Amino acid sequence: MDRVQEWNELAAQLCVDSIRCSTAAGSGHPTSSMSAAHLVSVLFSDHLRFDVDDPKNAGNDRFILSKGHASPLLFSALRAVGAITDDELLSFRKFGSPIQGHPAPVPEMPWVDVATGSLGQGLPIGLGMALAIRLDDLSGRVWVLCGDSEFVEGSVWETMANASFHEVRNLVAVLDMNRLGQRGPTMLQWEGDKYVARAEAFGWRAIQIDGHDVRQIDQAYRQASDGQGPTLIVARTVKGHGVSFLADAEGWHGKALDEDQAKKAIEELGGRRNITITPLKPEPVSRERAEGGASIELPSYEREFATRKAFGETLAAMAEAEPDLVVLDGEVSNSTHTEDFQKVAPDRFFELYIGEQNMLGTAVGLQALGKKPVAATFGAFFTRAYDFIRMAAVSRADLALCGSHAGVSIGEDGPSQMALEDLAMMRAVRGSTVLYPADGNSTTRLVQQMLDLPGISYLRTTREKTPKLYEEGEEFPIGGSKTVRSSDGDRATIVGAGVTVFEGLKAADQLAGDGVAVRVVDAYSVKPIDGETLRSALEETGLVVVAEDHWLEGGLGDAVLEAVAVGGKELSGRVIKLAITEMPGSGTPEELRDWAGISARKIARAIRSALPRDVSR
Amino acid sequence: MDRVQEWNELAAQLCVDSIRCSTAAGSGHPTSSMSAAHLVSVLFSDHLRFDVDDPKNAGNDRFILSKGHASPLLFSALRAVGAITDDELLSFRKFGSPIQGHPAPVPEMPWVDVATGSLGQGLPIGLGMALAIRLDDLSGRVWVLCGDSEFVEGSVWETMANASFHEVRNLVAVLDMNRLGQRGPTMLQWEGDKYVARAEAFGWRAIQIDGHDVRQIDQAYRQASDGQGPTLIVARTVKGHGVSFLADAEGWHGKALDEDQAKKAIEELGGRRNITITPLKPEPVSRERAEGGASIELPSYEREFATRKAFGETLAAMAEAEPDLVVLDGEVSNSTHTEDFQKVAPDRFFELYIGEQNMLGTAVGLQALGKKPVAATFGAFFTRAYDFIRMAAVSRADLALCGSHAGVSIGEDGPSQMALEDLAMMRAVRGSTVLYPADGNSTTRLVQQMLDLPGISYLRTTREKTPKLYEEGEEFPIGGSKTVRSSDGDRATIVGAGVTVFEGLKAADQLAGDGVAVRVVDAYSVKPIDGETLRSALEETGLVVVAEDHWLEGGLGDAVLEAVAVGGKELSGRVIKLAITEMPGSGTPEELRDWAGISARKIARAIRSALPRDVSR
Repeated sequence: MDRVQEWNELAAQLCVDSIRCSTAAGSGHPTSSMSAAHLVSVLFSDHLRFDVDDPKNAGNDRFILSKGHASPLLFSALRAVGAITDDELLSFRKFGSPIQGHPAPVPEMPWVDVATGSLGQGLPIGLGMALAIRLDDLSGRVWVLCGDSEFVEGSVWETMANASFHEVRNLVAVLDMNRLGQRGPTMLQWEGDKYVARAEAFGWRAIQIDGHDVRQIDQAYRQASDGQGPTLIVARTVKGHGVSFLADAEGWHGKALDEDQAKKAIEELGGRRNITITPLKPEPVSRERAEGGASIELPSYEREFATRKAFGETLAAMAEAEPDLVVLDGEVSNSTHTEDFQKVAPDRFFELYIGEQNMLGTAVGLQALGKKPVAATFGAFFTRAYDFIRMAAVSRADLALCGSHAGVSIGEDGPSQMALEDLAMMRAVRGSTVLYPADGNSTTRLVQQMLDLPGISYLRTTREKTPKLYEEGEEFPIGGSKTVRSSDGDRATIVGAGVTVFEGLKAADQLAGDGVAVRVVDAYSVKPIDGETLRSALEETGLVVVAEDHWLEGGLGDAVLEAVAVGGKELSGRVIKLAITEMPGSGTPEELRDWAGISARKIARAIRSALPRDVSR
Repeated sequence: MDRVQEWNELAAQLCVDSIRCSTAAGSGHPTSSMSAAHLVSVLFSDHLRFDVDDPKNAGNDRFILSKGHASPLLFSALRAVGAITDDELLSFRKFGSPIQGHPAPVPEMPWVDVATGSLGQGLPIGLGMALAIRLDDLSGRVWVLCGDSEFVEGSVWETMANASFHEVRNLVAVLDMNRLGQRGPTMLQWEGDKYVARAEAFGWRAIQIDGHDVRQIDQAYRQASDGQGPTLIVARTVKGHGVSFLADAEGWHGKALDEDQAKKAIEELGGRRNITITPLKPEPVSRERAEGGASIELPSYEREFATRKAFGETLAAMAEAEPDLVVLDGEVSNSTHTEDFQKVAPDRFFELYIGEQNMLGTAVGLQALGKKPVAATFGAFFTRAYDFIRMAAVSRADLALCGSHAGVSIGEDGPSQMALEDLAMMRAVRGSTVLYPADGNSTTRLVQQMLDLPGISYLRTTREKTPKLYEEGEEFPIGGSKTVRSSDGDRATIVGAGVTVFEGLKAADQLAGDGVAVRVVDAYSVKPIDGETLRSALEETGLVVVAEDHWLEGGLGDAVLEAVAVGGKELSGRVIKLAITEMPGSGTPEELRDWAGISARKIARAIRSALPRDVSR
């Protein structure tokens, strides 16, 4: 059998197996798999350099199924290369199976690096992988199989712009232009010239082929992997290709065939096959992990300092000792202060311009290949990338994010620049850690710990300088808090984080003047939160007032209530949440905090009103 | 004085005033304003048809400052047209002033339609306005002034693709290509040809000009507004143009000049001026508002039905009676069921393909011109557009959103398609309403109310069919709840919404078998939540168990705790939150709910464990 026949036979098997597993599941996307079967057949047979027995081999090429709904195709290919058995393939979409509806890198699925299924994410992730490979001076290529519907997603074009700008040479995107989306024709249908024109305008090489002609595919892959630049292969394909009643037919998106239909389709495709292939082996890598371990001298602060600046200086201080640390920014590095890292480690700093989705995808790709990425922008603008953060959690990614310019405390710039929902957003990410330091010294310790935290961690920093609160070297365990003022006679507890710790301390001063002793807790770890300290505070003082520079919903106040109620504990005492409830405008930080009710004066007033009359005035 | 001189003089005034107001404020973006001063001068003098005394005139052209940080320029232009006084201009960025750091449509600022300041949003909004104008058969044009840094944002390219696809002819984007971003050069600097190539590849006409040559500007505007298609004017400009020490100088982004610098700069610009201009008047509009008011026959359901389908059918039922109702979808209309509306009102349905950011921006633009937009996609994919939702609140937009496919209850498709953070995300939007109906009949009533709610409302729908729970015609007030089971002897209350109402009812059945009476509340209005009912339930039954198909953080459980604690009420009783805490995989809805601990069985078990031993087993 010649190569052409072999490729076509394997493609037919991938189609058959995609039908088999989705019919067994009763759901899934056989037709979206079939359009790309030839593309995957040739790739896995003769271009992807991948050690199936060592999927994390640093020398491997990487394959990302950006059109994650075509998971039957991926799993069928994994069967063909011997990664999974036929029985495992047929557990597709079953409870507990790693052969999930959309690819996810669960532990039993080491051949999948990242989760896909939210469209337009594979290419950004691919860019991150391509950069990681380049950083390590390896020869691997990154192949991303994309759907045509996802080429409307802006994230794709953020990556197209950045990949050419950053002169990435080992990234190949394969566009499965099958003309049909979920509910009918795609925007551009089979207008391949338009995809080509767009890609070229964005600085990519583009090659147009018939996506069912294996010779053309082979030739295109050869050209695309010549190291000459990022390449888009626009492959004209037919959804449901190879089966008369599925080919280019509407109404078949995301539908499994019933048993009879499956039988008929498999017959048309020439029946079941048991072809196995062995992908090309990667070049051997005699890779010495860069030696880190230089001693770290963390910065320390003797006077007022901006936490955002402490964040940047800490990254810079860790650059040498952490050779895998990479930092990404979205054209605001002089605001987030990642520029401090850029100055000392320019090769590990990535300016990704104002495209936050691509920035997050790139970070996910970098961490998938062993880097420790830190991505920063204004806290408000992480909302731009929430889908990527959500999906990063599905990818089991370890990522550190830093959002600067928290809350109304940014002042004059107004609400468009104020992060007021970031705590809510980041708390609602599976396995996340959410940190919000008040001063420079606590920031440095939290940043240091973030780099080794599993999952997605988020650090919220403040625009303005804040007073020194802690001594150099003090410990700030994740999940802890600091009781910064207390006495036996405390009649209330103020819980703050970031700027409101200082407002709380001032409020406590004011109340002390009235003879009312008040405890103050710095809840620098918003998630996990220090429930024990908070429950004790409520029990001992009877009144907890949470003050936060954030919307009332989903932030520190909700975290405190959650901690107090956790596990169905008997509730007693009172909790008052002070937070932002109306749309702010411009003003000084002090004016805005007072307007919002989270200033020292307003916190003190809330406590006076809440306490029995003898202490209010 | 000839027109050229007049245009240049006005441009100089705009520069001077931009410096004056930002220096008075001590912050702001004078240099980013100066690069576009000629562009705005010619536009406001001779092209923008706008009745300053009647800013909401339906015949007006619309102007959007997408690069919202150049607000000094906008406000200086508003001074020149007599909309605001010089004193008002000098209140820029002061607390309480409508002359905010970035433009926002506060009541005192009727000349601004939408908020900007998060980049890449003006063009999507402009598309919505252009569509609204076309729907109303008016002749207005939409002018969007964009920065160059924001042309990396994917949202811009989502709009570029959609605007040409939808053959919009009244949309002009003006790109102020001033080469410098916040922290240095932009990605493409002055490579105007690249912007032109990209725009043309996306189906736009593109015109390249010198952005300080008023004749070229005038000519380009003339051409761009000929109704021949969406046009991008790529204007090569100089940041800080006109002042020797600012022009094309790095380090001046977002910095106000000090008094001495301002004096010197104003001298170089020829000093203060007091030019006033009157923009062209719009064509008179004898617009009859479309007569709606046809009686609405809402659908009703006698048996199990999917809430997502009830949503679609309700929209369809309202199409005739609500002539301003427009529906937007992101290529999933057969899943969200907006296709039902499309069938009856195709002219008011917009297929915006898979580009959720553009979809939200388009919705904001449509509502700014009086339409009632409803935008739908999978709940999970609204995370893609969170920044647009956040900014829509700053825009004081009235929008109805519907997110389908809530929670693990979607089953086999797995976590990439599951909305598990949407309640947290939408609660943390200023002024939002969050609704989550359990059955078809409650869905119809909530959808009907949503269209007239102020602010941003969100409806969460379920993929699978759910049983009929309510009779046709029953009322579902916003902020209410339904106690669907109760007795005098209730020993616990189950609070659910959507699918968990049915799990709660089944759990109550199981517990009744043990002789334990349990109340069940359908909290269909997650925000505002029915605090009174929930507080009574906690008081009367002593134990509230919240079950939700959502992450533990930020959703219904947190809303219930918030309601219980509100205003610092004395807490008593116990609240248990049952929600998703681990990353799901594939499975049937029933398997996944049980795995997650929100099935009837697990709810009943939680109650048994929490109650004193005599009732547990």
